[in-house]
Amino acid sequence: MAVLRSYVSGAWHTPDAEGVPLHDAVTGDEVARISSAGVDMGAALEHGRRVGGPALRELTFHQRAAILKSLGLYLREHRDELYALSARTGATLGDSKFDVDGGMGVLLSYASKAKRELPNDTVYVDGAVEPLSKGGTFVAQHIATPLRGVAVQINAFNFPVWGPLEKFAPAFIAGVPSLVKPASQTAYLTARLVELIVESGLLPEGALQFVAGSAGDLLDHVTGQDLVSFTGSASTAQHLRAHPAVVRNSVRFNAEADSLNLSVLGPDAKPGTTEFDLYVKQLVTEMTVKAGQKCTAIRRAFVPAELIDDVAQAASERLAKVTIGNPTSEGVRMGALASLEQREEVRRSLKSLLDAGRVVFGDPERVDVVDADPERGAFISPVLLRADDPDRAEPHEVEAFGPVSTLIPFTSVDQLVGLAARGQGSLAGSVVTGDAAFAREVVIGVAPWHGRLLVLDADDAKESTGHGSPMPQLVHGGPGRAGGGEEMGGMRGVLHHMQRTAVQGSPKVLAAVTGRWVDGADRTTAEVHPFRKSLAELKIGDSVTAGPRTVTLADIEHFAEFTGDTFYAHMDEEAAAANPFFGGRVAHGYLIVSFAAGLFVSPEPGPVLANYGLENLRFLTPVFPGDALTVTLTAKQITPRENAEYGEVRWDAEVTKQDGTSVARYDVLTLVEKEAK
Amino acid sequence: MAVLRSYVSGAWHTPDAEGVPLHDAVTGDEVARISSAGVDMGAALEHGRRVGGPALRELTFHQRAAILKSLGLYLREHRDELYALSARTGATLGDSKFDVDGGMGVLLSYASKAKRELPNDTVYVDGAVEPLSKGGTFVAQHIATPLRGVAVQINAFNFPVWGPLEKFAPAFIAGVPSLVKPASQTAYLTARLVELIVESGLLPEGALQFVAGSAGDLLDHVTGQDLVSFTGSASTAQHLRAHPAVVRNSVRFNAEADSLNLSVLGPDAKPGTTEFDLYVKQLVTEMTVKAGQKCTAIRRAFVPAELIDDVAQAASERLAKVTIGNPTSEGVRMGALASLEQREEVRRSLKSLLDAGRVVFGDPERVDVVDADPERGAFISPVLLRADDPDRAEPHEVEAFGPVSTLIPFTSVDQLVGLAARGQGSLAGSVVTGDAAFAREVVIGVAPWHGRLLVLDADDAKESTGHGSPMPQLVHGGPGRAGGGEEMGGMRGVLHHMQRTAVQGSPKVLAAVTGRWVDGADRTTAEVHPFRKSLAELKIGDSVTAGPRTVTLADIEHFAEFTGDTFYAHMDEEAAAANPFFGGRVAHGYLIVSFAAGLFVSPEPGPVLANYGLENLRFLTPVFPGDALTVTLTAKQITPRENAEYGEVRWDAEVTKQDGTSVARYDVLTLVEKEAK
Repeated sequence: MAVLRSYVSGAWHTPDAEGVPLHDAVTGDEVARISSAGVDMGAALEHGRRVGGPALRELTFHQRAAILKSLGLYLREHRDELYALSARTGATLGDSKFDVDGGMGVLLSYASKAKRELPNDTVYVDGAVEPLSKGGTFVAQHIATPLRGVAVQINAFNFPVWGPLEKFAPAFIAGVPSLVKPASQTAYLTARLVELIVESGLLPEGALQFVAGSAGDLLDHVTGQDLVSFTGSASTAQHLRAHPAVVRNSVRFNAEADSLNLSVLGPDAKPGTTEFDLYVKQLVTEMTVKAGQKCTAIRRAFVPAELIDDVAQAASERLAKVTIGNPTSEGVRMGALASLEQREEVRRSLKSLLDAGRVVFGDPERVDVVDADPERGAFISPVLLRADDPDRAEPHEVEAFGPVSTLIPFTSVDQLVGLAARGQGSLAGSVVTGDAAFAREVVIGVAPWHGRLLVLDADDAKESTGHGSPMPQLVHGGPGRAGGGEEMGGMRGVLHHMQRTAVQGSPKVLAAVTGRWVDGADRTTAEVHPFRKSLAELKIGDSVTAGPRTVTLADIEHFAEFTGDTFYAHMDEEAAAANPFFGGRVAHGYLIVSFAAGLFVSPEPGPVLANYGLENLRFLTPVFPGDALTVTLTAKQITPRENAEYGEVRWDAEVTKQDGTSVARYDVLTLVEKEAK
Repeated sequence: MAVLRSYVSGAWHTPDAEGVPLHDAVTGDEVARISSAGVDMGAALEHGRRVGGPALRELTFHQRAAILKSLGLYLREHRDELYALSARTGATLGDSKFDVDGGMGVLLSYASKAKRELPNDTVYVDGAVEPLSKGGTFVAQHIATPLRGVAVQINAFNFPVWGPLEKFAPAFIAGVPSLVKPASQTAYLTARLVELIVESGLLPEGALQFVAGSAGDLLDHVTGQDLVSFTGSASTAQHLRAHPAVVRNSVRFNAEADSLNLSVLGPDAKPGTTEFDLYVKQLVTEMTVKAGQKCTAIRRAFVPAELIDDVAQAASERLAKVTIGNPTSEGVRMGALASLEQREEVRRSLKSLLDAGRVVFGDPERVDVVDADPERGAFISPVLLRADDPDRAEPHEVEAFGPVSTLIPFTSVDQLVGLAARGQGSLAGSVVTGDAAFAREVVIGVAPWHGRLLVLDADDAKESTGHGSPMPQLVHGGPGRAGGGEEMGGMRGVLHHMQRTAVQGSPKVLAAVTGRWVDGADRTTAEVHPFRKSLAELKIGDSVTAGPRTVTLADIEHFAEFTGDTFYAHMDEEAAAANPFFGGRVAHGYLIVSFAAGLFVSPEPGPVLANYGLENLRFLTPVFPGDALTVTLTAKQITPRENAEYGEVRWDAEVTKQDGTSVARYDVLTLVEKEAK
C-alpha cells in the first residue's frame, strides 16, 4: 500500500518508512499508509519564509483574490473525485458536499470579499487617521503588513477538505504562506486535495506546503513571525499552546477545540408551531450530519421543562426514520464514524453522560445498517439522552464526538444563561423561537460564551444555513473550552495574519507610507484638471480648487421651491433663529454639495466615467445667505480594478467659505478609466 | 514602617505580616513595606465577577466614559501629591509628568473617544450586516459583549501611575472590572493612586481592585472569561503565559515585554540638517528620560556608516550636558534608577553589550551626582556604546534597562531591515529623515516587527510626541520578543475585553438583538411623520414613504444650469450614450438626493433640529428623464447624548424608481430633541 507523500520545500517527498495504515471507515480496508519520516520540518518552514512569502508579497490583495477564485473554480471541476474519496471516511454525499463544496465556498467567498473590502495594494490601512496635534503636522494611522513567517495549520480529521481550506484562504489573502498538517485518519483526502492544488499550477511556489503524518519537531522551529492554528481536542490544544517555542516567541496561536454547543427552544414554540418543528428537525440534522462529528454540532438541547416530553417524542420519531449504513448506498442518511477508534471514544464518553441522563433514543452498542458490516465499519446509532437534573456536571462537560445529544430542561432565562455558561465557552449556539424579545434576551445573555449564535424562526428557516455551518463571513471560534480562537470572520481572519503597526508622522510622510492622500499632505495643482487624467496619469494629491460662488437668499428659496425641501431653517428667519445650531436662515446641505459639484466638475467627456457615491459627509458650519463657497477636490486613493478598463478614485472634497472655515467635508467616489482613450 | 494595604473584595486589607521593605531610589531610606499575606485572591476575582461586572454592565458606554472623565479630572487635582511620591522612585518632575499626567491623559482620551466612537448602549455592533441569503430573510452581524470575568493587570515598576491606568481605562469602558497588581519596587505610588480613586467614590464598587505584593495563587483562579495583561520581563511573561490555568482555559493573555527598539537616521540627514539634530536630541532624550527605564526607549541607534562618527560626537556632547542627581534639585535632568538591584541588573547587561561594542560616552561604574549620595541612590551614568560590527548578536538581544543605547552602522535599507528583524519584535521604532521615500521603505520593511513606528522630520518635530510615548489612540505592543501583545489602540483595546459573537437570524431578530434597524426588518408607518417625534417617542423602524416625483429632462437641465454641474452625462445624449454605465442622459446624483429630501422632509419646526451629514451614499441605478422617484426614510439608530437636550438619529434612506429598483441608498444623520417642546 502506498505511503502518502508530503509536499515540502518545493517537491513531493516520499517517506522512507512503512507508515501507519489508514482504514476505510465503512469497510475497514486499508486506504493508504502515512508517515512524515524524513521530512525536514525546519527546512520546510524556511522554504515558506524564503520562497513562498516573498512571492505572495509581490502580489496585491486583488491579485491574490483572483488566484483564490481560479483555484476555487479549478477544484470544483474535480469535486467528484474528492466526493469518492470522502465516502471512504464514512461520509454520505451530503456530508461530502458539506466538506468539499464548503471548502471551495470559502475560497470563492474570500476572493470576492477581498476584492470588495481590501485595496488593490500590498499594504492595508486600518482605521481612520488619528490627529495627534493641534496644528495638524503630526498625525498617525495604523497599517497592517503580512507577517514574515509561515501559518502552520494543524487540522482535525472531520473536515479533510474544508478544514485546510478555511485556514489557508485568509492566510493566502494576507500574503502569508501556509503549511498544512491534517489529522492522520483522513489525511488521504487532504493529500489528494493538495495534489490537485499543486497540479493546478495556480499558486506561487511555497505558498502551500503539506505534511502527511506526525508533526515531528515542527513546532520547535516556529518564530515570532510564524503562526499556529489548531483544530482538534482541548488536550492537544493545551499541549501546543504551552509548547516552549510557542511560549518563548509569543507565537500567534489560534485553537478551535471542544465545544458543548447548545440549542434552545423558546417557550412560545409549543408543539404544532413552525418553530417546534424547526427545532426538532435541526436537532436531528445536527446529530446525524457527518454522524455528529462536527465541532459545531448540538450537544446540549435546552428545552422548556413543560415541552421536554414532546420534544423527546418528536425527535425520537424523526431519528427512527434515519437510515444508517454504507454512505454510497441509496437512501442512507447517516454513514460511519471516521474510525473504529472514534467509535470506542464515543462509547466511552457516552458512559459518562449516562451517569447524568437516560437514553431516549438509540442503543450505543447496537445499530442496524444497510450494505455494510456493522462491526468492520465504524457505525453507531444516533443516541438522544435526557438529563432531568440540569445541574449535573456531565452534560455540560463531556463531549461525545458522534451522533449524541442530551435534552436538558430549563424554567427561566436566568437559569438558562447560568447553565449555558457551564459549557465554559462554545463555538456555536442556536435559539429557535418566534419571540424576538426572548431571542434578544438569550442572545445577549449567552453571547460572552459564544463565537456564533443562530436565531431560527419561520422568517429565516427557508434560507438559514443552519446551526452547524460556520460561514466565511462570520467568526468561527469560541472562548475558553472552545479554544479561545477566532477564524475566518471575513477580513478579520486576514488581519489575524498581519502585524498592525501604528505609523506616526507628518501628513506628507503618512501619505507616502500608505499610498493614500492624508489631510495636510501636499496638494498638486496643475493646469490640467484632475478629471482629465486617466488612472495612469493621476497621482494622489492631484487637486483642483474652484470658486468662490456666493449663495444668495434667492438661491436658497429657489432650491427649496425646486426640490420641495422647504424645511423651516431655510425658509423662516424667525424659526431658524430659534434653532440652537443656526441662529438664522441657512442654505440646504444638499445645495452646498450641489454647488460644490458645479464648481469642481469638468464637464466634457473624459476619463472620469461616473460619480457612484459619497462617503462620510459632514456639514460643519452653517452657510448663510451671502456666504461664498470654495471647493477643493483632491485625489485621495486610486484603486485600479484587475479585470476592467477602469478603477475607483476616491476624492477628498472640502468646501470652505470666505473666512476659510470648513463648511462641508466628504469623500467623492468616482469610476475612472485606466488609460485615456 | 507601614505595610501597604490591598483593596480587595470591597475593603482595604492590611496584611498581617512584616512585609518586605521598599527603598527610596535616591536616598536609600525605607519608604514602605509590602506584602499580600492574607489576601484571598480567589475571593477577590469572584468579587469582581459578582459585584463589579454587573454594576459596570448596567452602564452604557457613554455613562462609563463620563465616569472616566470625572476620574481623570479628579486625579488631576491631586497630581502634586503623586509627583512628590514619584520623586522617591528616582523620577525628575519631567519623568513624573510623563507617568502621572500621561496616565490621566489616557483616562481622558478614552472618555472622549468612547463618546465619539461607541454607541450610548451596552452592546457594540461590529462591522456591517452580512447578507447570507439571496432572498434577504437570513442575515448576520457581529456584536461584542463584555467578558464576564476580571481583567487581571500585572504591571511593571517603571510606570506606577500610567501603567495601571492605561490597562484600566479600556477594560472599564468595555464593562470589565480590573484587578491591578503593580511591581513591588514602586507599588507605594500605585497604592496612593488607588487610594485616591477609592476616595473619589466615582467608580462602582468592584470595578477596580488592587493587590500590593506578590500575586500568590491569583492565576490559579482565572477562568476563560477572565483576562491577564502583563508588562515586564520576557521571562516572567513566558512563565505567566504557560501558567496551567491560563493554558487550560484559553485565557486572553496580553504581554508587553523586552524590546530592543531601534531608531534609524536617514542617509540624507547629514550634520547641519534639522533631521541630524533631531536624531541626536531624541536619542539623548530617550536615554535619559526615566533614566532610560522605558520599554520603548531606543536601544539600537542605526546610523549610516559614514555618519556614525558625527553622531557619536554630537550625542556625546549633548550627554555631557545632562545633570544627574537628586530629581527634586534644580537643574537635574536625570534622576536615579528605581533601585540598587536595577543598577546591578543594568551593569550586568552592559557587560554583555561591551563584548560587542565600545564605550563612546559614560562610565558604567562611576557618575557625578548633584545633592545625593551616588552609592546609596541608584545612580548611573548614561552610557552610549558603539558596535562597529552590526552582525554581532549582543546589541540585538541584550536589553540594558537603563540609560544605555548602542550606535550601529548600516550601509543599505536591505541590510537595515535584516538587522531590525534580529530584534525579534519591538514595541516602537523611529526613522529620522527628510526623505519620504526612504521613510516609506524603512517603515514598510520593518513594520512586521513593530507595534509603532515614528517618522520624525522638520515638518512634525515641533508637534511630535516623540519616539518613547505610547499614545492611547495607537496600539502599544509588539510581536515576538516584545510579548506579542497589543494594548490601547483606541477602541481596539476596548474590544480586546469583549467577546465578539456572530449573530445570524432574520432582519427582524437582528434588529431586536442589536437595537438598530436592519434592512428587511419591519417598518412602522404611522400617520405621524417620524420627523415630528422626539427621541422619547421615536422607535427604530419608524418610517415615512413619499413620492412619486417624476424627474423630467427639464429638471435635469435646470439643475445643471442652476448648480453649474453640466457634466456631459446629464447634458449630451450622444456622449452619455457612449458612457459604459449610462446609455443615455441621466439625472445628477445630487439632484436625486435633493429631490428625495424634498419628498421626505417635514418642514415645520419640530424635534428634528438639523441634518449634520450623510454616510455610505451609493448611486445604484441611473435615473433617466421620465423616471419617477419614491423615497423611504426609516429610523435606524437612536443615540441620546448624555449631557445635551438632543441626540443623534441615523435614518436609512432608500430611493427607488417606478419599477421598484433601488436608485440610491444612504444614511441621513440628524440631531433630534430628546423631548418635544
